[in-house]
Amino acid sequence: MWSYEEPVKIIFGNGVIKKLNEVIKENKYKNGLLVSDKYFLESGFVGEVLLDNMGCIKNTFYDIEPNPTVKNVDSCAKLIRENNIEFIVALGGGSALDCAKAASVVALTNDSITKYHGTGLQIPDKGLPLIAIPTTSGTGSEVTSVSVLTDHDLGRKAPIASKSMYPKIALVDPELTYSMPKNVTASTGIDVLCHALEGFWSKNHQPISDALALYASLLVFKYLERAFKNAYDKEAREKLSEASIIAGLAFNLPKTTASHACSFPLTNIYHIPHGEACGLTLDYFVRLNKDAEKSRLEDFARRIGFRDASHLADEIRELKKRVGLLVDLKHLSLSEEDIEDLVNESKHPNLLNNPVEVTDDVLLKMYRSLT
Amino acid sequence: MWSYEEPVKIIFGNGVIKKLNEVIKENKYKNGLLVSDKYFLESGFVGEVLLDNMGCIKNTFYDIEPNPTVKNVDSCAKLIRENNIEFIVALGGGSALDCAKAASVVALTNDSITKYHGTGLQIPDKGLPLIAIPTTSGTGSEVTSVSVLTDHDLGRKAPIASKSMYPKIALVDPELTYSMPKNVTASTGIDVLCHALEGFWSKNHQPISDALALYASLLVFKYLERAFKNAYDKEAREKLSEASIIAGLAFNLPKTTASHACSFPLTNIYHIPHGEACGLTLDYFVRLNKDAEKSRLEDFARRIGFRDASHLADEIRELKKRVGLLVDLKHLSLSEEDIEDLVNESKHPNLLNNPVEVTDDVLLKMYRSLT
Repeated sequence: MWSYEEPVKIIFGNGVIKKLNEVIKENKYKNGLLVSDKYFLESGFVGEVLLDNMGCIKNTFYDIEPNPTVKNVDSCAKLIRENNIEFIVALGGGSALDCAKAASVVALTNDSITKYHGTGLQIPDKGLPLIAIPTTSGTGSEVTSVSVLTDHDLGRKAPIASKSMYPKIALVDPELTYSMPKNVTASTGIDVLCHALEGFWSKNHQPISDALALYASLLVFKYLERAFKNAYDKEAREKLSEASIIAGLAFNLPKTTASHACSFPLTNIYHIPHGEACGLTLDYFVRLNKDAEKSRLEDFARRIGFRDASHLADEIRELKKRVGLLVDLKHLSLSEEDIEDLVNESKHPNLLNNPVEVTDDVLLKMYRSLT
Repeated sequence: MWSYEEPVKIIFGNGVIKKLNEVIKENKYKNGLLVSDKYFLESGFVGEVLLDNMGCIKNTFYDIEPNPTVKNVDSCAKLIRENNIEFIVALGGGSALDCAKAASVVALTNDSITKYHGTGLQIPDKGLPLIAIPTTSGTGSEVTSVSVLTDHDLGRKAPIASKSMYPKIALVDPELTYSMPKNVTASTGIDVLCHALEGFWSKNHQPISDALALYASLLVFKYLERAFKNAYDKEAREKLSEASIIAGLAFNLPKTTASHACSFPLTNIYHIPHGEACGLTLDYFVRLNKDAEKSRLEDFARRIGFRDASHLADEIRELKKRVGLLVDLKHLSLSEEDIEDLVNESKHPNLLNNPVEVTDDVLLKMYRSLT
């Protein structure tokens, strides 16, 4: 038995950012908050958006770390409460979107997000309406109910998910992604491939996610290198924005698996960017999972143009090299103790979604192979 | 620019019909109407469903023609008004679902559905909540906003569509499709392939529909013949139910094109079942559209296992033969006048969605090739 729902309305196209005002008016939204990345504030872009939406958006929040923290969320929620904010526009990469999604829900309570982050406690089922405008093509956060947050006090980076955190509308404008630096294009792009593959092989996968995973993977292999080489390649940017949405839809319900679980300590301890950290172990887990998945993963690999699953794994590694991403951890000269720490910190619940059981031994062997 | 939304919640699995009571209770629905096909009433199945939902479903409506009529819809809406019905369970093939979807909206007005059918007038934006339970695997009606209705007085068969006609929940139980006769399995199965291919090449196609179309087509080629040969092939039935949903999602927004437009007079005048009538011209339109679509359709054909688009067209024809569907109209011994009538009656707005302009000459040549 499986179920599927996707309540987010997606509006996609070059220049659709200009439709924001129309969307706000259509929905009769009033007293909005713009949650955005500092970069866009400094580039003057946030100012433009505010100018276009005078009267509707009255406050801004941009105090967000690259890996958004529970404290960022609590501050944002406080601002929402104090100003009786009625809707949120989240404009930025995964950080702004994930922070805004979590804040849109806790703002309607008197709680700190720490009550729900990593505790397993069910997240409240109401949130303020949110318009998500991604400026990267990677997290898929604009179409998912997931928010990945970090708690520095507890040294914990983990996703939380709730139906109340779905954006109401995703306004996806590929032109906003042109400003991504090369390394962000690469890292977010490989994150898309992780979402697609992990959504496909997750124990909770289902046919709609399978269909979407296949297509998103095709697009990443075809367009990531092009967008990496030329930030203004219009077609490649468009296709990567499509891929990000489609992979977001693909993993939203099945959730991610081993590569995402392992990424959390790699980002937490060694500050490897999220997508790069996920991608680091992806080819390893293709090889590990291919036997459990039998013909399913082999068939997947063939349909996206490879000979078999091993060839897919080889090509993931080659793609990472070509777009300047890490393929191992040799530069860190990790000790046995460091590796054991990584093993311990990788035991996130998402590991349980992996089709092959990922024991400590599997993790140990995997991390050793990277050093 | 494109947009996407899919508000239907899908619950899928063998035996999920037993969850109906749970779904009704979860949503706190009261005073329901069961809209169903006569066949299920006579088989006693409707009685079982009623028994399982005593107290929640108090009325039934089953006076529906195989191609549901505007009169069927008006009668159903009258019953809804007279009994203050608050929600609808539609159980059956496309006929029961399409009739219930249209009735769920006009019942909240004092209008006849004829005010909206084929008139271009916007359908009201409110409807009663509807739980759709398909018993065939073909129409995809359980996940779309479309209802195909016939007006005998005007000799018109045409789809209408409105956001208000989306079911709230689709409860898809492949076991309910085991009772389909062989010819219905074949006809509804080829309808799935039409939805997928027409959704793919429709001028309004977009990447999410492309992804879903590809996958649904794969499933039809792999499983239709198996389900046709053995009605109780559990895997094949499951996969065709999946294909029906996925193809429904694929054509829901792009809408159908030339094969569906031509099917309407073929069903109206010559009583060819809907799916069979759509499938009749599908290979012809693959050949016609492949040049306009250039590499897109060729690539599609290769990814689902064929050499090219021509090979795909050949294999559609072979598949139709193997499952006992018409591949031409020779048995009707059509006169030139009959053909001209078909040409005139095929000029439905859906023709405009076709990537190649379908002129009278194109239609004439196409119908002549079938006689």
